[in-house]
Amino acid sequence: MKKSLVALALMGAFGSAFAQSSVTIYGTLDAGISRTTHTANDATLIGKRDNNKLGFRGVEDLGNGLKALFQLEIRYEPDTGTLENVSRPLFQGQSRVGLQGSFGTVRIGRGLSAFQESVIAFEPWSGIPAVAGYQTNLQVTGYTSDPLGPAGNSANRFSNALFYNTPVMNGFQLNVTVATKEANGNPAIVGRGTAAAPQYPANSEASANPYSISATYTNGPFAAMLAHERNGIETKLYSVAASYKPTTALKLMASYQKQDQSHTMLINPDTDAWIIGANYTVGPGKWLIGYGQKTPDGVLKTKQASVGYEHSLSPRTYLYVDLSQKKTPFTPAATNDVEQNHYALGIHHNF
Amino acid sequence: MKKSLVALALMGAFGSAFAQSSVTIYGTLDAGISRTTHTANDATLIGKRDNNKLGFRGVEDLGNGLKALFQLEIRYEPDTGTLENVSRPLFQGQSRVGLQGSFGTVRIGRGLSAFQESVIAFEPWSGIPAVAGYQTNLQVTGYTSDPLGPAGNSANRFSNALFYNTPVMNGFQLNVTVATKEANGNPAIVGRGTAAAPQYPANSEASANPYSISATYTNGPFAAMLAHERNGIETKLYSVAASYKPTTALKLMASYQKQDQSHTMLINPDTDAWIIGANYTVGPGKWLIGYGQKTPDGVLKTKQASVGYEHSLSPRTYLYVDLSQKKTPFTPAATNDVEQNHYALGIHHNF
Amino acid sequence: MKKSLVALALMGAFGSAFAQSSVTIYGTLDAGISRTTHTANDATLIGKRDNNKLGFRGVEDLGNGLKALFQLEIRYEPDTGTLENVSRPLFQGQSRVGLQGSFGTVRIGRGLSAFQESVIAFEPWSGIPAVAGYQTNLQVTGYTSDPLGPAGNSANRFSNALFYNTPVMNGFQLNVTVATKEANGNPAIVGRGTAAAPQYPANSEASANPYSISATYTNGPFAAMLAHERNGIETKLYSVAASYKPTTALKLMASYQKQDQSHTMLINPDTDAWIIGANYTVGPGKWLIGYGQKTPDGVLKTKQASVGYEHSLSPRTYLYVDLSQKKTPFTPAATNDVEQNHYALGIHHNF
Repeated sequence: MKKSLVALALMGAFGSAFAQSSVTIYGTLDAGISRTTHTANDATLIGKRDNNKLGFRGVEDLGNGLKALFQLEIRYEPDTGTLENVSRPLFQGQSRVGLQGSFGTVRIGRGLSAFQESVIAFEPWSGIPAVAGYQTNLQVTGYTSDPLGPAGNSANRFSNALFYNTPVMNGFQLNVTVATKEANGNPAIVGRGTAAAPQYPANSEASANPYSISATYTNGPFAAMLAHERNGIETKLYSVAASYKPTTALKLMASYQKQDQSHTMLINPDTDAWIIGANYTVGPGKWLIGYGQKTPDGVLKTKQASVGYEHSLSPRTYLYVDLSQKKTPFTPAATNDVEQNHYALGIHHNF
Repeated sequence: MKKSLVALALMGAFGSAFAQSSVTIYGTLDAGISRTTHTANDATLIGKRDNNKLGFRGVEDLGNGLKALFQLEIRYEPDTGTLENVSRPLFQGQSRVGLQGSFGTVRIGRGLSAFQESVIAFEPWSGIPAVAGYQTNLQVTGYTSDPLGPAGNSANRFSNALFYNTPVMNGFQLNVTVATKEANGNPAIVGRGTAAAPQYPANSEASANPYSISATYTNGPFAAMLAHERNGIETKLYSVAASYKPTTALKLMASYQKQDQSHTMLINPDTDAWIIGANYTVGPGKWLIGYGQKTPDGVLKTKQASVGYEHSLSPRTYLYVDLSQKKTPFTPAATNDVEQNHYALGIHHNF
Repeated sequence: MKKSLVALALMGAFGSAFAQSSVTIYGTLDAGISRTTHTANDATLIGKRDNNKLGFRGVEDLGNGLKALFQLEIRYEPDTGTLENVSRPLFQGQSRVGLQGSFGTVRIGRGLSAFQESVIAFEPWSGIPAVAGYQTNLQVTGYTSDPLGPAGNSANRFSNALFYNTPVMNGFQLNVTVATKEANGNPAIVGRGTAAAPQYPANSEASANPYSISATYTNGPFAAMLAHERNGIETKLYSVAASYKPTTALKLMASYQKQDQSHTMLINPDTDAWIIGANYTVGPGKWLIGYGQKTPDGVLKTKQASVGYEHSLSPRTYLYVDLSQKKTPFTPAATNDVEQNHYALGIHHNF
């Protein structure tokens, strides 16, 4: 008992003591073994299930409830030691600085858009890019927030952006992200143009300012989200999601989203998707269950059913198993589909 | 009271406790909104005003006044999360190790040359690469310390170098940097050659050892600098600068520099430039004011007038505004010029 | 006395207090001046002698003797500030996470293979890549653990691998590394094929799972190792090594290794090498002495004799001098050889 009290005293003491370098280092190292049938590489692989992070962040108290915030987050691949997807930015996770006060939080830089940051709370795998999860495909209907990023860049962030979050008022919060039109080195996007004259040539500026808005509401066991986003090539995304906790151990969640690509597609511009899922905590174990469908215009549906189990060894470390079955069209225009089974087993460690 | 005393005790205790990893993490995250008229991209941009840093440094006491020093400094772009200028070295800021004692400081590795490290004290924007500032152009007459670096590399550092600083004696200090001739992957430089037979082909060795010398003198409110540098293609830079503080709140500064490119240019090899500026601190505010001209042989002058304001929210965090007007030739050989207005607004946070 | 006791108390307290960020930062910055005669660049260079590291690691106690471990290690070039060899992965050193308990240690990710991690204890330069040392050539007979890595990648690591170390039992320890067949972007390897149809085209999968096994035995002043490894193109490496300490100040060591490239070479597939060496510690000084030969089938021998001296300024910092003479064939098929002299002088700092 006594020790831990001392410990707490120390934290305070230490905080002030290190004011000259008030940086917290944090991160995640998640690695495991997986296999996905009917893929180009139908083999046993070693890789990640969650994003892997090494981050640096700090909060400076400016007095009168005003705070300065910064956060820099490296992303990497644990199986090869490279940056995420080999070529993504060093601070792929985020690089933001800003102020927080009674007015809310204002940040500037690069990070998840308001929609992308809010929607993960309604995805049974909590938005990690696990193959068994739904975030990177069904939860966003294959939409990308950054179509004008460099090739291989991530799909859910805004660069050159302003981020604003209101305070939480009676359970309500509004989140807004707006980006400039700056070109960031995209490959050409044919869109409604031709290979010779693409609608968006390489290294285009955005044709309109990308923006993202999400409104969230939390009331006891109930939470909901409404969101709308428009990216740099004027694709629109609409999303509505909700979750409910009948007991502290059980969380039920559902979401529906629609993508409108009419600005770049003459035909079949719409895609919608829905997901239902649950998290159930029992002792050191947590079950993840989900089912969802994605329906692009004039293309076969994608159907996915998944179950996962996380076994905590500590509040910072758990082992996991994922099983997933996915029916997907061979190609966006496919008339027949393929059934992929996915198996994953690994360890997740936060530091 | 008691607590803070404990805190101090802890620092000592902690210091020793963590001797195995005596690393201080430090950095800067500066981001804002800016616009520059009459540029290729005459649009609102989100970007930086200062260099953005994430650094690791340490000092080890070796006894008898001898110390071992190291410093590694990452540079990055906060608006996109990439390394500085996308492709610069991970430790673009510096990577140096060395010893400090009664003999002065000797370091080895990569870092700012003696001239570049000394001259920033005489630039009204303190040498940051702000568009409104003078460091990257007028303060160095467009000179580059590293013409044989890879494309896009920074212009004020020596790689493969030895760095020596004398102790400060009666206000005097001498700083010397000498680099090897090692090739570092430069693009070809035509110089006095031809496109077919450039004077410095790609990945050339330096034709002479690059060196940089600066002598600084400080006496109460007065400070001055004399510097000379020669880079890997034997371009020579001469600089003289001085500053005076009539009051603690006011700092006046002026500098003159001359660049001699006769080793690579047959005609019009000389460029000179002068700058005058002031910093005025009032309460939490700091005003930055400057005017300068750059005169390359046979080319139109560049004229720049700037004013900036920094408002401190804390010793580590400030908001800033910059206004600047610059008259520049379209191209080095231009016969008419363009007037660019620059506006910037942002936040600067040290951690 | 009392203070240091407090300090220890603090460490414990602190550990728990900062459970949210239990990261130890460590590293090495080694830089110096060197010259090697009869090289493409027979000039004075500034560079490294040891690998340069900036690492992040942590251990979490999970109770019942179970621990979670992670380690991420950046490698870089101090003379230019770039990543190691410019293009190697950010966490070139290693990126591994795992568990440790009575069963031993299991890790997953990327790191030194079992053989490569064990053999450095029997190399007079402790396995650092010094030109005067033997690790990167004679100690491994020019063998590479990662022939299917990207061009310029390191030669002694497995990516996409599982790492297992038994506990030490009566001085015995067994270490096993197994990797998947995943392609990692190798350049084409002609091998027994033709330029048109190389045996291993670009970005090949391994033709068999790479594995590495080492058995080590320590008994007082005596230590020994037996190791076998097979890489992704089925080259085999066999190694036996031993060391003996007649006094605490003197360590004698010897090793013999054989490489069998018959899977990719029709003729002269075998290479063997042997090394003898000694470390002698006297006061703050440490002498490194070694001699070795490498004999590839049908090619001239490589013969190397080296002596080094390390002078400790502290347990973390030393200065070093290396002298080495190496007789090497001009090319693998050379019929005459060249004698290279190597001189190095520098500083090595751990943090």
